[in-house]
Amino acid sequence: MSRIAYVNGRYVPRAAACVHVEDRGYQFADGVYEVCEVRDGKLVDERRHMARLVRSLGELRIPLPMSLSALSVVLHEVVRRNRLGYGLVYLQVTRGVARRDHAFPPPGTRPALVVTANGLDAARADAMAAAGIAVITVPENRWERVDIKATALLPNVLAKQAARERGAREAWYVDRDGYVTEGASSNAWIVTGDGKLVTRPADFGILKGITRAVVLDAIRAQGLALEERPFTVAEALEAREAFLTSATQLVMPVVRIDGRPVGNGVPGPLATALRRGFHAFAAFS
Amino acid sequence: MSRIAYVNGRYVPRAAACVHVEDRGYQFADGVYEVCEVRDGKLVDERRHMARLVRSLGELRIPLPMSLSALSVVLHEVVRRNRLGYGLVYLQVTRGVARRDHAFPPPGTRPALVVTANGLDAARADAMAAAGIAVITVPENRWERVDIKATALLPNVLAKQAARERGAREAWYVDRDGYVTEGASSNAWIVTGDGKLVTRPADFGILKGITRAVVLDAIRAQGLALEERPFTVAEALEAREAFLTSATQLVMPVVRIDGRPVGNGVPGPLATALRRGFHAFAAFS
Repeated sequence: MSRIAYVNGRYVPRAAACVHVEDRGYQFADGVYEVCEVRDGKLVDERRHMARLVRSLGELRIPLPMSLSALSVVLHEVVRRNRLGYGLVYLQVTRGVARRDHAFPPPGTRPALVVTANGLDAARADAMAAAGIAVITVPENRWERVDIKATALLPNVLAKQAARERGAREAWYVDRDGYVTEGASSNAWIVTGDGKLVTRPADFGILKGITRAVVLDAIRAQGLALEERPFTVAEALEAREAFLTSATQLVMPVVRIDGRPVGNGVPGPLATALRRGFHAFAAFS
Repeated sequence: MSRIAYVNGRYVPRAAACVHVEDRGYQFADGVYEVCEVRDGKLVDERRHMARLVRSLGELRIPLPMSLSALSVVLHEVVRRNRLGYGLVYLQVTRGVARRDHAFPPPGTRPALVVTANGLDAARADAMAAAGIAVITVPENRWERVDIKATALLPNVLAKQAARERGAREAWYVDRDGYVTEGASSNAWIVTGDGKLVTRPADFGILKGITRAVVLDAIRAQGLALEERPFTVAEALEAREAFLTSATQLVMPVVRIDGRPVGNGVPGPLATALRRGFHAFAAFS
């Protein structure tokens, strides 16, 4: 199957998909991105992802490269041309190409748009969820505006690599006060001993995850007990369950934190149920 | 004049210089850079810039894409092919191209190397130095490892743009304790009322500027009074002089901070002398 990417107005073979070396995304991480799950060839929660994209771009004052309806056509066309059933569609918008200078380029500089698609192995993801994953904790060391879904992801790269080298799949950032902020590419959750679901409020310290929002809908619809508040690593270790949410991992049980078991060391019933029921609360387009 | 860039093994017309959309520099800001001044067609302080490049790459565990001697050939060849007399050569190394995943790509993934060159207008730079520049102050909001010269520069972009919109050329970051850390693309200096040059130690809170190091050499060689310590904004406003250093701006007098004059509001004699004498302490290659 020939893989296809969309790059600045053209559908091109993936191998030939390139951007200019003076694209500000390359020189300054001056751009944002979104990752949408694709299921049965349909986008999951496209509307919410596009709303967050608009917000991220607005915070950085990068113009939307095209209307949302045109963008939707591109996203679906990339999925279609790649004959993608289950996987991810990745979208990146940068401030465009200009002679290198930190400050914004001249008005009228066209933002760059890249869309790619990758298949995922559903069986592998489900096996991982059935076993649960390990996370490590790392000190929060990122910039203050992680609420913007920007491509300045180097700290996240280093945290994720540290996790891999310690046999874990994710790193949870811990702030100066000992509270978990979020994972390097996911939001963090626990279930307390008395059965309450706890996750940090989506203020400026974390990214407002789309999967997190859908899970919140599911929790409310089912009348489950919820507290949006920060939690500590100690509290997570004493929790009945822990899990993370992201478009790539959906609801993923966490069974070890820094090598110590969470609950009885196996995926918990609430996380497992939220994962199974997730798509009933998601929107397909 | 046809402009030439070096991209991953080839000298190509600048307009056609591109990198793959899955270059980790584009998707993760997973790369580092250097900017060298070029003067009379020669690189200024190449050895020091390359030593810092090696350190930045080492901190991120990105392999050097080629030997330093081969890299030196490329840098000089880009200068030569662009017939660059006075300007800048820009070098960027990223962790290479791989399917998107935060953690490091498989061993053997080849780092990417891009080198470009841009001319500078010497008369314009000197006129700016003769007038002095304005800076603004902004809260320090970057990640903790700004000692690594990484391309995760989005916070710097926003700070620099804020400066431009307030009629200034640079933004000085101020930490929680009220001390100036550094500029968005330069190191910060003052001259106290009793004639001491003051600049922040190059610990993990700032980038160890090459121009800063050369100016330190010049200061020591001339027996000028020096204190490597943090200074506050209030102290800078009461200072006799202020200036910044960077490969692009060399020694640039600062005459206003947040709209208030420094000293008598014109470039000071020490900054002016250090700018004039700078290249006597620089190395050319």
